[in-house]
Amino acid sequence: MGGDHAPSMVVEGLKIARERFPRVKFLLFGDEEMVKPLFNQAPKLVSACEIIHAPEVVSNEAKPSQVLRTGRKTSMWQAIDSVAKGDADGVVSAGNTGALMAVSKFVLRPLPGISRPAIAGFIPTEKGSSIMLDLGANVDCDAQNLVQFALMGEVFARIAFGHEKPSLGVLNVGSEELKGNSAVKEACAILKEFESINFYGFVEGTDICAGTVDVIVTDGFSGNIALKTAEGVGKMFVSFLKEGFRASLMSKLGYLFSRSALNHIRSKIDPRRYNGAMFLGLNGVAVKSHGGTDHVGFAYAVGAAIDLVSGRLNERIKEEFAKIPQMPGQENGGMNEG
Amino acid sequence: MGGDHAPSMVVEGLKIARERFPRVKFLLFGDEEMVKPLFNQAPKLVSACEIIHAPEVVSNEAKPSQVLRTGRKTSMWQAIDSVAKGDADGVVSAGNTGALMAVSKFVLRPLPGISRPAIAGFIPTEKGSSIMLDLGANVDCDAQNLVQFALMGEVFARIAFGHEKPSLGVLNVGSEELKGNSAVKEACAILKEFESINFYGFVEGTDICAGTVDVIVTDGFSGNIALKTAEGVGKMFVSFLKEGFRASLMSKLGYLFSRSALNHIRSKIDPRRYNGAMFLGLNGVAVKSHGGTDHVGFAYAVGAAIDLVSGRLNERIKEEFAKIPQMPGQENGGMNEG
Repeated sequence: MGGDHAPSMVVEGLKIARERFPRVKFLLFGDEEMVKPLFNQAPKLVSACEIIHAPEVVSNEAKPSQVLRTGRKTSMWQAIDSVAKGDADGVVSAGNTGALMAVSKFVLRPLPGISRPAIAGFIPTEKGSSIMLDLGANVDCDAQNLVQFALMGEVFARIAFGHEKPSLGVLNVGSEELKGNSAVKEACAILKEFESINFYGFVEGTDICAGTVDVIVTDGFSGNIALKTAEGVGKMFVSFLKEGFRASLMSKLGYLFSRSALNHIRSKIDPRRYNGAMFLGLNGVAVKSHGGTDHVGFAYAVGAAIDLVSGRLNERIKEEFAKIPQMPGQENGGMNEG
Repeated sequence: MGGDHAPSMVVEGLKIARERFPRVKFLLFGDEEMVKPLFNQAPKLVSACEIIHAPEVVSNEAKPSQVLRTGRKTSMWQAIDSVAKGDADGVVSAGNTGALMAVSKFVLRPLPGISRPAIAGFIPTEKGSSIMLDLGANVDCDAQNLVQFALMGEVFARIAFGHEKPSLGVLNVGSEELKGNSAVKEACAILKEFESINFYGFVEGTDICAGTVDVIVTDGFSGNIALKTAEGVGKMFVSFLKEGFRASLMSKLGYLFSRSALNHIRSKIDPRRYNGAMFLGLNGVAVKSHGGTDHVGFAYAVGAAIDLVSGRLNERIKEEFAKIPQMPGQENGGMNEG
């Protein structure tokens, strides 16, 4: 029920997802009376779907704390709960981000060894795409948090990109080891000791879209700012291009000739292709779709969730964290804060 | 002597600057034997320039601490010193950023009431341009630092944009007052109390290039990452465009027709136009030019310094800070940390 064009956008998105993943079954949580009629035009989809009636909805304005107190009957909570109960392998929602994160953390619980789950996403680069995390779940991060993000991101990248040794970098204000705040310096020193990972060292803002590394590790404050800054620059470019092509008859002609080339570029940076922010570090796969996306974008978010489930993300994160030797100052084994 | 193409780039840049500012006199610090021959092709420039022989040069690799200890005879130090002595009104250098900041702070000293000088720069937006600070001088900032950056940025914007009430925003991960780390929340609460300024509240990464506010206030860690991320996205777009236009005969034709429109866009985001990072909060104007820029870019940096001098930046910052009522927890008057 979440997102600007729900629930029809969700059902339309599942049509696309079903073509790509014909063996996957979908549980739809929402207002049955609103959702059911949408299947009248989708007879092929019916067999892959089950509608579970959940009359209440989490609004976009709802505060996470309020949803945690009173939201058990909402479609969002029910959907997350289906993952906890084992009825579903993962959950995808285009609803309220804060509430989705809070309820997912509360219901699914963090994986052993993870003190703070993080939000990870794909970002377009000159070479294809990279993964960046955290994108906003944790505004204050210490070195341990960053190291945990790095290890989770590494597993995610192995699944998403299919290569065994994805490269990792910690986002900083310079590439020299002396630069940065204490959290990134300490995280860098710790990550250099992990022989099993392909750690590049520090990367700068320019490296994000250059595709210098497969995984960019950062705190949720800088990560969110970097992601949204990139989005803003993209919008500015598109608006300047439109303005430029409209400027004269000559440039309008130019647009006609260049259209297929421009469409090719547009598809490379199409935000729908990068839709789907993964909550990493929970007992269960949870993916947040952009609220303003359309059915094509929603299908990408569903695809991302399916990839994580079939790639056994959480089992592999658990395996990875079980291998970690006890860290200095960590008495309880692994890297758990508590 | 600093920068990839110095000293010839500097002299060529001054030719342009002299056309724009015919009454300004330039002191050039550097190796006389290298600099003097460059004036053979610039007879008109000679009368506006004085060469002061400084045989030593700060290398790009030199550590700021090392320059502070042993760099008194370098052209960079001598140039900064000329501002302290009153021989010059401002200094522009394309050399080592860290050294330039460290020596400027040491020689020029912070203005009364300023605990930490900041680096400010222009950034292109859909509406024209905005000012962002800090761009990397201070990786860890508390609320007081951010408030000081805001007040300095406000004075700078009044000079640069010529309007009396430039708008200010604090960069954050969301626009709601509950979001963000404690530094931005506290800074926002303090800035709301200043009736004399046009404070917008929080802005997000997408707002930077949207031009939502005239001045974006942030810590040096996030500011540096945002600036360089924007730079990287710009590069990616240009590379995708080039690739697109080269893709087919059709698109090559398209390029020919659209060339003037594309050049118009290029000029809007030409990094040379935004060259010049201002060190705000010092007893003297100091501007850092990008090391890789050409003479056109260097002339912009020189122009930025001249604008700050003729706009009486530092006098106005001092006036502004003298007006501030004593802050809670600030016993020594003004906003000075010490």
